[in-house]
Amino acid sequence: MLKDREVKLIRQFGLEPIKDIKFPFPHKFVSREIFIAARGIEEFKKMLRGGPFYILTGIMPSYKLIHLGTYAIVESVKYFQQLSKITIIAIADIESLSTRNVPLEKAKEYALKFHIPTYLALGLDPKKTLFYFQSENKDIVKIAADVSRKTTFSELKAIYGDVTPGRVLSSLIQIGDILFPQFSLDMMGLVPIGLDQDPHMRLCRDYIRRTDFYDFKQVASIYIRLIPGLDGSEKMSKSDPLNSIFLPEEDYGDLRKKIWRAFSGGKPTIEEHRKYGGDIEVDVPYRLLTYILDDENMWLELGEKYKRGELLSGDLKNITYNILVEFMDKFKKRLDYYRDIVLRNEISIIKSAEEIKSFI
Amino acid sequence: MLKDREVKLIRQFGLEPIKDIKFPFPHKFVSREIFIAARGIEEFKKMLRGGPFYILTGIMPSYKLIHLGTYAIVESVKYFQQLSKITIIAIADIESLSTRNVPLEKAKEYALKFHIPTYLALGLDPKKTLFYFQSENKDIVKIAADVSRKTTFSELKAIYGDVTPGRVLSSLIQIGDILFPQFSLDMMGLVPIGLDQDPHMRLCRDYIRRTDFYDFKQVASIYIRLIPGLDGSEKMSKSDPLNSIFLPEEDYGDLRKKIWRAFSGGKPTIEEHRKYGGDIEVDVPYRLLTYILDDENMWLELGEKYKRGELLSGDLKNITYNILVEFMDKFKKRLDYYRDIVLRNEISIIKSAEEIKSFI
Repeated sequence: MLKDREVKLIRQFGLEPIKDIKFPFPHKFVSREIFIAARGIEEFKKMLRGGPFYILTGIMPSYKLIHLGTYAIVESVKYFQQLSKITIIAIADIESLSTRNVPLEKAKEYALKFHIPTYLALGLDPKKTLFYFQSENKDIVKIAADVSRKTTFSELKAIYGDVTPGRVLSSLIQIGDILFPQFSLDMMGLVPIGLDQDPHMRLCRDYIRRTDFYDFKQVASIYIRLIPGLDGSEKMSKSDPLNSIFLPEEDYGDLRKKIWRAFSGGKPTIEEHRKYGGDIEVDVPYRLLTYILDDENMWLELGEKYKRGELLSGDLKNITYNILVEFMDKFKKRLDYYRDIVLRNEISIIKSAEEIKSFI
Repeated sequence: MLKDREVKLIRQFGLEPIKDIKFPFPHKFVSREIFIAARGIEEFKKMLRGGPFYILTGIMPSYKLIHLGTYAIVESVKYFQQLSKITIIAIADIESLSTRNVPLEKAKEYALKFHIPTYLALGLDPKKTLFYFQSENKDIVKIAADVSRKTTFSELKAIYGDVTPGRVLSSLIQIGDILFPQFSLDMMGLVPIGLDQDPHMRLCRDYIRRTDFYDFKQVASIYIRLIPGLDGSEKMSKSDPLNSIFLPEEDYGDLRKKIWRAFSGGKPTIEEHRKYGGDIEVDVPYRLLTYILDDENMWLELGEKYKRGELLSGDLKNITYNILVEFMDKFKKRLDYYRDIVLRNEISIIKSAEEIKSFI
């Protein structure tokens, strides 16, 4: 069910909810409505029907900590990798520098040590996944320059409110990120992101319609409901460690404490809870399970029992904690494995669209 | 002698006139005060005393026609090449795209066919001169991103008045142009330009002082009095063909007509001219000779005779025409030669600062 804020944004941005869309493969994100809306619904439908497309997503390597919210993005990319031959992941080091004051070498270190291994450890298909650093990709500025002459200052102002030179550069470069694969691929593009990123997509799609120098195919975005902060706030944030679950959590004692403090949809007393039941719409442990628990029956049953008051808030927290521990154990093993892979340079880091050709 | 507008700009920009500076080699541009001012006078003096520096200048490949104004820039670069081991010439194709709507392929064609051969034909030392296309140089965006976080919107507004995304991108990229050689060269930089370009230099020098991520040496600029339009206006412009002399002029009949119509400092009648003499400060043919006539005695003598009224306006125009024809004949031969050189890929086009190392 869409939340009020989502309904408002979807209406405000002129997006189409996708509840009537038939997805070709089952997935917890489909049945649990984690995919909430799309821009470019016609293109998106073509992709689902087998039209060729690439997937583009970005990593902001501004810090070494990565929270569980990233899982929602990567799991979505994984889903669409079943339909697409090629996924390209922008490491936004230029953006980290221009908007977050992170030196390029630092961003590179974070990306190689933390972000890239995490993305692969979360299950992206390494044979279909290419990475690149914005600062090493000479194609994106060729697009950014064209965007700059086709975009007005007031359009940027509408997105950012306060426009700084850093934000102007970032937003131009971002459109370069989304479109440069088309220098080599005659395909549509799909960008899985959070709803709040939609203004960039709108800018990008408008630009594609306007440019007379490049002949880009249109791009679509699929919006993912982001994992909430532990206090029930909109989304996890790496700047608020106590409110986030990290990939990985090193100390399971800390993890237990975090889950224990998470916002609950249970009633204040056991008696009331038994009588009226809990609210799974706001219960953060249950909402975490909505993302990470694969077993559909178990997820539904836990929800039913919680709503009926048979399951107490503490029970649900315990279950969530145990499932998260299992998740982390598996993740950490894979993370170690992919750190080695990255160290051995066995991943595909490209520097131009030209290099994409040899991968498809 | 500095003109009113120059004095005003020099004062307004806080520049230092360089009339007291001792230049190490004689040159018509020194004796005739074509070099009018500098920013970074301390650095500039160090360079003249033998401190190592690179020269950076730019080509805007937005059109195939190149006017005589370019000669003033190239002749200045040639002068300073006597003191410097390396000259780097930015071909501003990104800027041509973002601010003048020129597609990258078109800019590349113009640069290879017209601009680069012209720069070499005007006498740059090919062994010391490297070219690069902004769109192919991945180092400049690394600097542009850092500039973007260290520059405010109002600083850009002070330069441009009306700030567009294209201008923001261009001005950030321009600073990348000026500084990227320092990724390989531990040297100061010298930028020979027209006075009107000073705001960019100020922005660049301010940025060098502010950045905490890169350790750039300071850059200086030397300001060149630009060749006037044939009607006596500020400078030649490729958008006003009748007012400009092109490199080359193909039809000498047209050239003769242009010189004949050029703004004269002579008196309305022969009698008055004989009596009061002509004004060499405003006489366009004489001002053209100030740039292109190498023979110092001849230049001085023509000036004296003209001022005394011994030489008529028509005489001076004839002389100027003949000298220009000689200039064009020589230039065209060299142009053909360097077009072949460019066609055979025998010039140095680099794509990163790294490649500079092998040239010094």
